[in-house]
Amino acid sequence: MDRARRTGDAEVVYGEGKTPGQVIAILRTLHERHPDRAVLATRLSEDAMAQVATSLPDANVDAVARAATLGPFPEPRGSVAVVSAGTSDAPVAAEAALSIRVHGSAVELIEDVGVAGLHRLLAVKDRLEAANCLVVVAGMEGALPSVVGGLTGTPLVAVPTSVGYGASFGGLAALLAMLNSCAPGVTVVNIDNGYGAGVFAARVARAAR
Amino acid sequence: MDRARRTGDAEVVYGEGKTPGQVIAILRTLHERHPDRAVLATRLSEDAMAQVATSLPDANVDAVARAATLGPFPEPRGSVAVVSAGTSDAPVAAEAALSIRVHGSAVELIEDVGVAGLHRLLAVKDRLEAANCLVVVAGMEGALPSVVGGLTGTPLVAVPTSVGYGASFGGLAALLAMLNSCAPGVTVVNIDNGYGAGVFAARVARAAR
Amino acid sequence: MDRARRTGDAEVVYGEGKTPGQVIAILRTLHERHPDRAVLATRLSEDAMAQVATSLPDANVDAVARAATLGPFPEPRGSVAVVSAGTSDAPVAAEAALSIRVHGSAVELIEDVGVAGLHRLLAVKDRLEAANCLVVVAGMEGALPSVVGGLTGTPLVAVPTSVGYGASFGGLAALLAMLNSCAPGVTVVNIDNGYGAGVFAARVARAAR
Amino acid sequence: MDRARRTGDAEVVYGEGKTPGQVIAILRTLHERHPDRAVLATRLSEDAMAQVATSLPDANVDAVARAATLGPFPEPRGSVAVVSAGTSDAPVAAEAALSIRVHGSAVELIEDVGVAGLHRLLAVKDRLEAANCLVVVAGMEGALPSVVGGLTGTPLVAVPTSVGYGASFGGLAALLAMLNSCAPGVTVVNIDNGYGAGVFAARVARAAR
Amino acid sequence: MDRARRTGDAEVVYGEGKTPGQVIAILRTLHERHPDRAVLATRLSEDAMAQVATSLPDANVDAVARAATLGPFPEPRGSVAVVSAGTSDAPVAAEAALSIRVHGSAVELIEDVGVAGLHRLLAVKDRLEAANCLVVVAGMEGALPSVVGGLTGTPLVAVPTSVGYGASFGGLAALLAMLNSCAPGVTVVNIDNGYGAGVFAARVARAAR
Amino acid sequence: MDRARRTGDAEVVYGEGKTPGQVIAILRTLHERHPDRAVLATRLSEDAMAQVATSLPDANVDAVARAATLGPFPEPRGSVAVVSAGTSDAPVAAEAALSIRVHGSAVELIEDVGVAGLHRLLAVKDRLEAANCLVVVAGMEGALPSVVGGLTGTPLVAVPTSVGYGASFGGLAALLAMLNSCAPGVTVVNIDNGYGAGVFAARVARAAR
Amino acid sequence: MDRARRTGDAEVVYGEGKTPGQVIAILRTLHERHPDRAVLATRLSEDAMAQVATSLPDANVDAVARAATLGPFPEPRGSVAVVSAGTSDAPVAAEAALSIRVHGSAVELIEDVGVAGLHRLLAVKDRLEAANCLVVVAGMEGALPSVVGGLTGTPLVAVPTSVGYGASFGGLAALLAMLNSCAPGVTVVNIDNGYGAGVFAARVARAAR
Amino acid sequence: MDRARRTGDAEVVYGEGKTPGQVIAILRTLHERHPDRAVLATRLSEDAMAQVATSLPDANVDAVARAATLGPFPEPRGSVAVVSAGTSDAPVAAEAALSIRVHGSAVELIEDVGVAGLHRLLAVKDRLEAANCLVVVAGMEGALPSVVGGLTGTPLVAVPTSVGYGASFGGLAALLAMLNSCAPGVTVVNIDNGYGAGVFAARVARAAR
Repeated sequence: MDRARRTGDAEVVYGEGKTPGQVIAILRTLHERHPDRAVLATRLSEDAMAQVATSLPDANVDAVARAATLGPFPEPRGSVAVVSAGTSDAPVAAEAALSIRVHGSAVELIEDVGVAGLHRLLAVKDRLEAANCLVVVAGMEGALPSVVGGLTGTPLVAVPTSVGYGASFGGLAALLAMLNSCAPGVTVVNIDNGYGAGVFAARVARAAR
Repeated sequence: MDRARRTGDAEVVYGEGKTPGQVIAILRTLHERHPDRAVLATRLSEDAMAQVATSLPDANVDAVARAATLGPFPEPRGSVAVVSAGTSDAPVAAEAALSIRVHGSAVELIEDVGVAGLHRLLAVKDRLEAANCLVVVAGMEGALPSVVGGLTGTPLVAVPTSVGYGASFGGLAALLAMLNSCAPGVTVVNIDNGYGAGVFAARVARAAR
Repeated sequence: MDRARRTGDAEVVYGEGKTPGQVIAILRTLHERHPDRAVLATRLSEDAMAQVATSLPDANVDAVARAATLGPFPEPRGSVAVVSAGTSDAPVAAEAALSIRVHGSAVELIEDVGVAGLHRLLAVKDRLEAANCLVVVAGMEGALPSVVGGLTGTPLVAVPTSVGYGASFGGLAALLAMLNSCAPGVTVVNIDNGYGAGVFAARVARAAR
Repeated sequence: MDRARRTGDAEVVYGEGKTPGQVIAILRTLHERHPDRAVLATRLSEDAMAQVATSLPDANVDAVARAATLGPFPEPRGSVAVVSAGTSDAPVAAEAALSIRVHGSAVELIEDVGVAGLHRLLAVKDRLEAANCLVVVAGMEGALPSVVGGLTGTPLVAVPTSVGYGASFGGLAALLAMLNSCAPGVTVVNIDNGYGAGVFAARVARAAR
Repeated sequence: MDRARRTGDAEVVYGEGKTPGQVIAILRTLHERHPDRAVLATRLSEDAMAQVATSLPDANVDAVARAATLGPFPEPRGSVAVVSAGTSDAPVAAEAALSIRVHGSAVELIEDVGVAGLHRLLAVKDRLEAANCLVVVAGMEGALPSVVGGLTGTPLVAVPTSVGYGASFGGLAALLAMLNSCAPGVTVVNIDNGYGAGVFAARVARAAR
Repeated sequence: MDRARRTGDAEVVYGEGKTPGQVIAILRTLHERHPDRAVLATRLSEDAMAQVATSLPDANVDAVARAATLGPFPEPRGSVAVVSAGTSDAPVAAEAALSIRVHGSAVELIEDVGVAGLHRLLAVKDRLEAANCLVVVAGMEGALPSVVGGLTGTPLVAVPTSVGYGASFGGLAALLAMLNSCAPGVTVVNIDNGYGAGVFAARVARAAR
Repeated sequence: MDRARRTGDAEVVYGEGKTPGQVIAILRTLHERHPDRAVLATRLSEDAMAQVATSLPDANVDAVARAATLGPFPEPRGSVAVVSAGTSDAPVAAEAALSIRVHGSAVELIEDVGVAGLHRLLAVKDRLEAANCLVVVAGMEGALPSVVGGLTGTPLVAVPTSVGYGASFGGLAALLAMLNSCAPGVTVVNIDNGYGAGVFAARVARAAR
Repeated sequence: MDRARRTGDAEVVYGEGKTPGQVIAILRTLHERHPDRAVLATRLSEDAMAQVATSLPDANVDAVARAATLGPFPEPRGSVAVVSAGTSDAPVAAEAALSIRVHGSAVELIEDVGVAGLHRLLAVKDRLEAANCLVVVAGMEGALPSVVGGLTGTPLVAVPTSVGYGASFGGLAALLAMLNSCAPGVTVVNIDNGYGAGVFAARVARAAR
């Protein structure tokens, strides 16, 4: 927990592999230490989300993001646009969005803008340029960051998702595509890592003029 | 050579691993058997192209495609648009284009239309729809077929190229991206296989109404 | 849904990861908008197929293809032959066949013609040549498209399946084999992607003379 | 070249696969169009660097970065620290540094701070925190970004290099390590892509308060 | 069982794929043959641990290590420090620790010392140097062995764990990182192989001055 | 050299990485020890073949197989058919053929029988069945062993070759295809390992009735 | 079923993915057609084995091999030794052994002879040489075929198993080791393919003098 | 250079990618600082070895190891046996041996003991047990460490080499085999990393009783 204090980031519980009871206990402890700032729990099972909602009535459970927060969000500084194509990518986009709010920036969710429907993407160009940082979430062929990166010079973090089958190899196809983007200035995080993209983007947005 | 006669395709010499003398001898023999129809040699070295030009003055050497033909092109039936983004993909696009001509269709080359410059791509939408089949060539993240496939319902063959470095793994990133395209109806050939895409597209275009 | 209208293709619900209730609701909505043309739902669970049959009595559920349609099939134009070797590949072949019908072409299913029994394959050569396009489905070593592609010049889309074990790596062996086919003019789609192959083949067949 | 104007980035020539003559011609043309701002050429061969120095006496050739610029650098806004461990990673660090300058930020090079000598790294902690963005370059096991990311909350872009042998698989080991960093907020670019990391970091730094 | 006698190592049952009854029967047989020296069972299921505890009341079941021993530990000679970062790696660290005790050395567990919190690691430097051998356990990016290896010249065995997701590929990222460590003298065992690392380290420590 | 005597196989020099002088010296020594039986050198460079021809006038240099023998072939027992499709696979087929002769069986070379030309393959069915063992050599998609294995019950050793490009990954595609052959009773050796296939097939043929 | 008659092999049902009812029906049909020769069903689930035992009282169910036969075994000609190291590899060894019997040869099972206990292996050397063919089954590092192949010149088919964890990658490590065996004349089948190895070995043994 | 002093190891120059002049200059500088203890340069080109021999007459150049030392070896404490099979692995074994001497232990080279000739290996069993640590070097299938590890309880470091072709994938097959060794207590270093194995083994041997 030292690292979080040192960097100005929020305290976070990674829920994968933890029992609901462990998640609740850690959330409670962290909240007592940081009552004035939201703490975050990610990668929660259905069961953990249900028990958090029951045991911690003040917690906010985000069922799409499979995550929960406890305590007030910081006053937002700067804003991040989270861009995604389809409903399958929604959980990762929601995890990114919640992580951004918890780490101190405003969020604008821009969904349903895939590369196979360019006019919807072109219609949001101004909103892309208005943000201080972009988080672009995509599975399958992972082409969205390249197209968005060609439309704007805003710093862009790409998140490959494990959405796909066969030769998507659990998100590897999207990951490789994003690492090879022809649009300069695209950076990438691990498959399904909405949290990591959110932390990074919030840091950039908080510091922006 | 039986197969070519049986299928109506042209006779072809695959030049990789053959000496210039072998290429010339095979081209000459095939041309004598099929004097009324162009035969094709692909994957020629600099040296092979030079010697073909000297020894077979009637041959047409296409330096970009690293290929040569001998004999008259068939009367074109139908047309194929060959679409690519950049100068690095030009050799594969040229190999596809020449293969299409040799296999009996007209070709329209549409170059310099990458996903990071959408307006140029949108400007050629009518030409994409006018073709009977599309061959879309791309390296790096291989996103172009998905974007083109979202613009039109024309049958589309995607060709990944080995253009890229690092995590492109010799074209593997582009290949996987194309196999996972979110645009339905995209089919794929081997990395750098402009010839195969051209044969397929010409068959489709020749048979189109 | 814009893309489908733009391209002349059918509306489709990808059922993977959707609840039966979601599948039924989307099918109903799409059918109301397109009452004169079949809409398609693919990758349905056992449960989803059962609930679709109950809730939408007019729907046709194809248990082999794990898919359902709602509304009348278009009048077929052109025809596609779907070729496969064994019973294990039947689900992918059936998904391709249904997709072809929904996208406006006639289908001829040619099953039980593997490479280890050539006489059965040779016996159907005329039917292969009569089709406007071929969809060839194979798992394990993925050799069938090469053999079929050597018999005929009809445009051929190969579909690798995840049938196999050990070093088949979930269909990767068949995918690589098809990408490296020695028969020219073979194109490939993602592992188990019968739908994508069907859409492509129907586009080719509809446009054929 | 439209994209560069649109995004405020510099114009760039990717030298790989281009002849020295082509590099010189493009640099000259770009410089004529943008006389008041440096244009950049990367991935130059020994031969290309020598000919650029001869043919374009006003160009600055950076032999470590294997790159050249022509025209005045922009007035720097914000600053980026480029951190690396050893002499083997110097070319990628230098490419990043030059790209940052060309894209409008100041650069601080911090070399010789590997994970096997922590005291040197701890000694530069203040300089890491003073920067608006970090570019951390590492080959072999790619551990440096995790350690640096644990020391500071500054936005951090990690660049894996192809330095290593055997099971480094041309930089793949370092790339995977960086994508799996336990330090939150680490983003990654392609292997050896100092240019991409530099463009991204300069965008972040230019916009920082 | 000959090999164990020959090498002076303990007798061990690998529990994976064995029924609780088989594990109990083998443990009992081995214990009868070696009543004066602990025998070890690893990779036990929840069920196997419960039945061992019931059927063999003298056995010690280590729930974290998912292992059990029967019989007295040997008098320890030399000592091994087992170092790990987080709670997720605890099962592998515990399996290593128990294996070391069974194979005749003392163990010191040093947990919660990850690369993103260097001060905790620096605080234990003396304990690292006091050990005769180190076992360093890490998942995700696998950076800990490189950092520990830079702090001390004690022989170091690195154990990658399967902790992680996405591009960690079941521990492959950590394994590759460890094999490419810039700290000389780091050796590596298979993913999650706490047992193998423990056997090796105990052999080194037992023989040390 | 003990192993060869023990197994009844011939003595062999693996030429890769050896100087022509080393190859010649070893061949000479082996021949002196076994004057009544051919010894074999494989994987010879152009230079090594030339120097062997000069220095050992009694040696037979097989330029296609890149191999040489010294001493008389054993009287053949049984026969092996070596089957391949094209000229590109000829070196591996020739290495297999020579190895078979050296190891004591007769060889029948059946070339130019690829899967895209079934009638040529069907025409040699009797010769396939007459052999005691088959060695089937194929690159690219590696389909030939499956087709041959469906035609006959003769024991069949498949040899993948590195012939191909792009997604053939140096023969990996053919290797995987052969390991997944739907024809039962197909065994496989390493990529380009004509020698190993030949040794095995000769052992089978020598022992056959 | 034509292929089996043509090659002299037995009829076989591959049970994976088939319901117990389907397995029983096919076994019954095949047995009626071939009452004088055992037919084989492999890869049976627990449930399928139980139902076969109930519904087909004349069937022999081999619980270790997860297989069943119906009808009398052929009179054995020649013999095959099936060699393996440990209890984990027993199912694959048993599948091979049963397949050999069904395909007409005698079998000798030699178990518990791993590379870490050489004296047990050396003790069976005579039995290895007495067989007409060897099937060597091994998981993990797959070293056993190399050691056995160095002891004898008998034709040897290696079967990698999926036994292992972590970097065994489901049997890939053993497969690659066997393909790279330093002992000449080792051939390999797919991971866990005891059946394929058995068919091949029986063909060799039946034809041996 | 701090790390070396801290750990008691020798100073080392990694010669890959350095010019002969750079190697000589660093060797000279290190030697001046440590005149009483040998410094080591590894991975030297032919050219670098020649120039070192000329410029530093007191240096010892080891042509097999492609390495050089300058200054007196430390008095040896403990001993390490370096075991390998064939001449192809000799360079890696020699690099390990020289590294061991430079790092303060005695070395015993045991060559020509491959797994296909067990009697030679069994003949050296006593020498294996007499050593304080073993370094076992092997390419191809990498089976030697498993066999040696079954013979003795001495700590064993395995070094995979890049010797092999085709499916050895540059040493990957041997690396995976060693990581999956069935002999407990085998640790592994990177492909061809004789130096790293030597440093580790010398540390173990120096500290042994």
